[in-house]
Amino acid sequence: MNSIGKIFRVSIFGESHGIQLGAVIDGCPAGLELDEQDFKADFARRRAGAKGTTPRVEPDLPRIVSGVYRNRTTGAPITVVFENTNTKSKDYDNLLTHPRPGHADFTSSKKYGSFQDPRGGGHFSGRITLGLVAAGVIAKKILADVTVSAKLIEVGGEKDIERRVEQAVADGDSVGGLIECTVSGLPVGLGEPFFDSVESLIAHYIFAVPATRGIEFGSGFKAAVMCGSEHNDDIIDASGKTRTNFASGINGGITNGNDIVFRVPIKPTSSISKPQQTYNFATDCVEELVVEGRHDACIALRIPVVIEAAAAAALADLMLLQQSRPRIIAGPK
Amino acid sequence: MNSIGKIFRVSIFGESHGIQLGAVIDGCPAGLELDEQDFKADFARRRAGAKGTTPRVEPDLPRIVSGVYRNRTTGAPITVVFENTNTKSKDYDNLLTHPRPGHADFTSSKKYGSFQDPRGGGHFSGRITLGLVAAGVIAKKILADVTVSAKLIEVGGEKDIERRVEQAVADGDSVGGLIECTVSGLPVGLGEPFFDSVESLIAHYIFAVPATRGIEFGSGFKAAVMCGSEHNDDIIDASGKTRTNFASGINGGITNGNDIVFRVPIKPTSSISKPQQTYNFATDCVEELVVEGRHDACIALRIPVVIEAAAAAALADLMLLQQSRPRIIAGPK
Amino acid sequence: MNSIGKIFRVSIFGESHGIQLGAVIDGCPAGLELDEQDFKADFARRRAGAKGTTPRVEPDLPRIVSGVYRNRTTGAPITVVFENTNTKSKDYDNLLTHPRPGHADFTSSKKYGSFQDPRGGGHFSGRITLGLVAAGVIAKKILADVTVSAKLIEVGGEKDIERRVEQAVADGDSVGGLIECTVSGLPVGLGEPFFDSVESLIAHYIFAVPATRGIEFGSGFKAAVMCGSEHNDDIIDASGKTRTNFASGINGGITNGNDIVFRVPIKPTSSISKPQQTYNFATDCVEELVVEGRHDACIALRIPVVIEAAAAAALADLMLLQQSRPRIIAGPK
Amino acid sequence: MNSIGKIFRVSIFGESHGIQLGAVIDGCPAGLELDEQDFKADFARRRAGAKGTTPRVEPDLPRIVSGVYRNRTTGAPITVVFENTNTKSKDYDNLLTHPRPGHADFTSSKKYGSFQDPRGGGHFSGRITLGLVAAGVIAKKILADVTVSAKLIEVGGEKDIERRVEQAVADGDSVGGLIECTVSGLPVGLGEPFFDSVESLIAHYIFAVPATRGIEFGSGFKAAVMCGSEHNDDIIDASGKTRTNFASGINGGITNGNDIVFRVPIKPTSSISKPQQTYNFATDCVEELVVEGRHDACIALRIPVVIEAAAAAALADLMLLQQSRPRIIAGPK
Repeated sequence: MNSIGKIFRVSIFGESHGIQLGAVIDGCPAGLELDEQDFKADFARRRAGAKGTTPRVEPDLPRIVSGVYRNRTTGAPITVVFENTNTKSKDYDNLLTHPRPGHADFTSSKKYGSFQDPRGGGHFSGRITLGLVAAGVIAKKILADVTVSAKLIEVGGEKDIERRVEQAVADGDSVGGLIECTVSGLPVGLGEPFFDSVESLIAHYIFAVPATRGIEFGSGFKAAVMCGSEHNDDIIDASGKTRTNFASGINGGITNGNDIVFRVPIKPTSSISKPQQTYNFATDCVEELVVEGRHDACIALRIPVVIEAAAAAALADLMLLQQSRPRIIAGPK
Repeated sequence: MNSIGKIFRVSIFGESHGIQLGAVIDGCPAGLELDEQDFKADFARRRAGAKGTTPRVEPDLPRIVSGVYRNRTTGAPITVVFENTNTKSKDYDNLLTHPRPGHADFTSSKKYGSFQDPRGGGHFSGRITLGLVAAGVIAKKILADVTVSAKLIEVGGEKDIERRVEQAVADGDSVGGLIECTVSGLPVGLGEPFFDSVESLIAHYIFAVPATRGIEFGSGFKAAVMCGSEHNDDIIDASGKTRTNFASGINGGITNGNDIVFRVPIKPTSSISKPQQTYNFATDCVEELVVEGRHDACIALRIPVVIEAAAAAALADLMLLQQSRPRIIAGPK
Repeated sequence: MNSIGKIFRVSIFGESHGIQLGAVIDGCPAGLELDEQDFKADFARRRAGAKGTTPRVEPDLPRIVSGVYRNRTTGAPITVVFENTNTKSKDYDNLLTHPRPGHADFTSSKKYGSFQDPRGGGHFSGRITLGLVAAGVIAKKILADVTVSAKLIEVGGEKDIERRVEQAVADGDSVGGLIECTVSGLPVGLGEPFFDSVESLIAHYIFAVPATRGIEFGSGFKAAVMCGSEHNDDIIDASGKTRTNFASGINGGITNGNDIVFRVPIKPTSSISKPQQTYNFATDCVEELVVEGRHDACIALRIPVVIEAAAAAALADLMLLQQSRPRIIAGPK
Repeated sequence: MNSIGKIFRVSIFGESHGIQLGAVIDGCPAGLELDEQDFKADFARRRAGAKGTTPRVEPDLPRIVSGVYRNRTTGAPITVVFENTNTKSKDYDNLLTHPRPGHADFTSSKKYGSFQDPRGGGHFSGRITLGLVAAGVIAKKILADVTVSAKLIEVGGEKDIERRVEQAVADGDSVGGLIECTVSGLPVGLGEPFFDSVESLIAHYIFAVPATRGIEFGSGFKAAVMCGSEHNDDIIDASGKTRTNFASGINGGITNGNDIVFRVPIKPTSSISKPQQTYNFATDCVEELVVEGRHDACIALRIPVVIEAAAAAALADLMLLQQSRPRIIAGPK
């Protein structure tokens, strides 16, 4: 489904080469200051144009067309839209017969028949994450003093990220990367048993981001090789601060006030200049395919802000949900 | 929330030492054969009693109390309940002042005040996964010819699992493990853009399982160090079969007919016999704590069947959802 | 679906002659006092046994099997179950060939094939409303000072209800009735635009109650013959009190602090002793049918408390939802 | 919430005087023919301009900005937007101090503080129903051979509708009306127990339409005065056709193949030229208020197509949901 959230609800729409794309954000409290300038910084981080990113550069000018009045949210659904301007027409019809390896060409044609919009990946394009980043900007306002910060910490296994990207460009190839996201300043008590643990919700949103291949929280895959005596985080003060943070700020699916730290591997872009093998459904043969068009050599460069947005949207929903809880509780006898 | 699913919906209830625990499974088609014996094999895999697992052994006898008539599902909600029998009374009140490291004691007391049921972890106990396993048994029937198979492939980083567990028992410590799950025989086309990608849904359910710290699909964290020319899976026949399977049977969030393979690290059990440090909220000091009670030295031994159930439930929902789609489509002109 | 609600969520399960029926109530705040005695008064109002109601009298003893500890809700799902005891075995197989007029026999057999549980109406039995009444008892506790009060105001168009029921019994027939429900003491501001207006939610729950044929709020069907100058309720004080209350305490789908008043017509029970015509699917002829078994001559006698429960559950959900809203709003500049 | 539906999901956004308003329709199957012309007939029925309707006439030109490619739905979310053009600026600030009787001015200001958009009713305007009508156009395509037809059958209690409207205009007053909607050609088996009965879902959508005050199905309020022997609809052929149709084509919440017939009373527009009394929150006095602006003397004239859209959207969702059900059922032994 193209929408998510229980109270803070995000709906995404649009295609890579369609008329308009955007997001409807519902359930946002009234009274938050919001105008088009607020999206600028996060959009700039997602934008293409730097070395290793596609030369298709869109202005990404957001228009808030509903839900805001006199620069304040009204409580009604907030709609943020973008026009697609820099689209290049070409013949995409052969994608049905020559599906590109690693793309959704094959799966989407099986799911939707020949009706999908093939231009630039249609609704499966990474361009659609623009709406998610817009939702993230609003979610961060709801989170107020909480900071959500993601960065690319490795490309192709190397810390010298710039060098490794340059090499991929030179090779006509693409390369993956590793993103780490830290969330600080969360209150204790967010998250819902059983199915809406903090990890469940964050992971759900994160895997909506194209090119993500995994997620680990805190100790992550290292937990599989650890002993309990190492892994348990001792509580050392009345606020719940722990000496270590293998739990990544979450116990039993609920925030404990320490930082949430998670890492997400990003696969190398499927579109590469090198020739590849694919099945030709018209001739029933495996044939060589050269994918043309404008590619990102390292899409991971542009994804940290999308990861932030996904995490912020998940946490904003949990925060609003938690607010519904305690005010009618009488104290224990 | 304690329920999940759009069509195949699972609701979980109960506590470790409560009267009854179980699950309500709604949205299951009418006409599936189902009786209490069908749960036996999966429950046996989850049961304690082997070396490295807790000596608290429950008979886990399921009672189907609704939704089945003459050993067939009726289309009404299926309720499967279990009685708790082997509970030991003791004083849990000090958990509020001495929260155990790595447990939900601190977070749940902050979330629910002093009202939570502290006995055996209450609703936060791993015992609650029994209801999820029951749902998994039914989900597997819906999936019919699809096989979902999870196994423990490493404990504490070692392949000789038995030996490593024995060592943990001898140490009075606990140890983590790594589970791999493979799903074979899925049709092409399951999964929904944008937010309900196959990975999003499976991850959502998996992180509901206590002690999971991460998930990776196919290439997973290795994708971060790979090039596109390595990572792209070439399609080699008309069914969509690929030469490699780094994509783990999923492109653009939608199944491509190849196996889904994912791995989940399980942390070492928090309850260990060794003394630990924790904050005493009554005295405002860090103090030594010895956790008594019956523990699993390696909870990962019991979790593969729970992982299977989580994946099966997610996929059964996607399969029913996909059935709602194509029958009203007229062919293209 | 057998569950409803965004925060206060009610799931219903069970069949008329099944082993157990009941409800799972999730999203209830921790700390509410609750024990089995709390259900007694509302269950008594729903119970059969009085003149005009079926002689099948069930003890309706609730067992709270999860979500309550030391007589306080814990925040985990509350499960309330009932055993069916007073069931009479008989051959229901002919319902598939001789569907009773006015019952779900025909529709459920088309929907679920021959797999449905036909005994006493199976999951379509009015007995299932017991779980809804249980949810209503808890919802009323969340509503605290709000009173929800429904009563039967007419039977067969007459105010002398007892006399009219006696006549129906004497006739071997059944008779309908009209229920009015008043909700007092609600805060201003409950209800959500666009689709979750207070009327939308209450109506959704009310039509889940078998035998309801309509609902009208305040002026209701009379609104169709009124002028605006009559219908507009003048506000007469700072609390929002209005001179008249044609709006039934709701403007724009949101509560205005005045009483909500709504009326619900209840159809006469379909099961009657008089012979009826029905189609015999085995012989392809219309034939006479005499429905045996134990019937309610006026089911409307037992429904007011179910209507209360439905309204209370809808409003408890809206109240918790509203609590999620305002605390993060900064004041306007 | 501003969205509804389980598979066929409708989200509404926009304000009366905002930049853009519209709807996102998700879950629509791929391959349906759709272009902007398809909305023309239904939009014309909703449009103002005739006697008794407001002189604010908007062109209501829909732009499909996503989800359609080469005049076929793609399976991605369909977004239909409208620009607001004919808005008149004026000072709405006094609505906070002088709430108009019968409007949402008071309730929305209590719910959203001073942040709401007051221009023309903001998000509470009937103009927002344009998005619902757009969704209805698409829903009707999914329903294919099913016809959904609503008409205004009375105004102010009179059948001579034109005459009664003219009188209201002459009086500077407004007047209510009664709408009847008939749905023909539905398959047997739509609707879900317990909470998603056909009546529950239709009523939920209908009460989202501003100015609706009630709903009754088939016998409706007359059911309260009927006997079972009158009310039961005898089945007279193998298709399930009934002699009478008091049940309105629905038994046990599930369609039986006969027509669904329901009626909805529409209240008189709250905005009238006659002076009214309202509370002045600035002076703490009841004062006379004259509402200026452009009004509908009989809003009921424009609502039948909105009622159709609401019913069609509810039924399209149920139809898609039902398709998810039967294909995996093995036959009974």
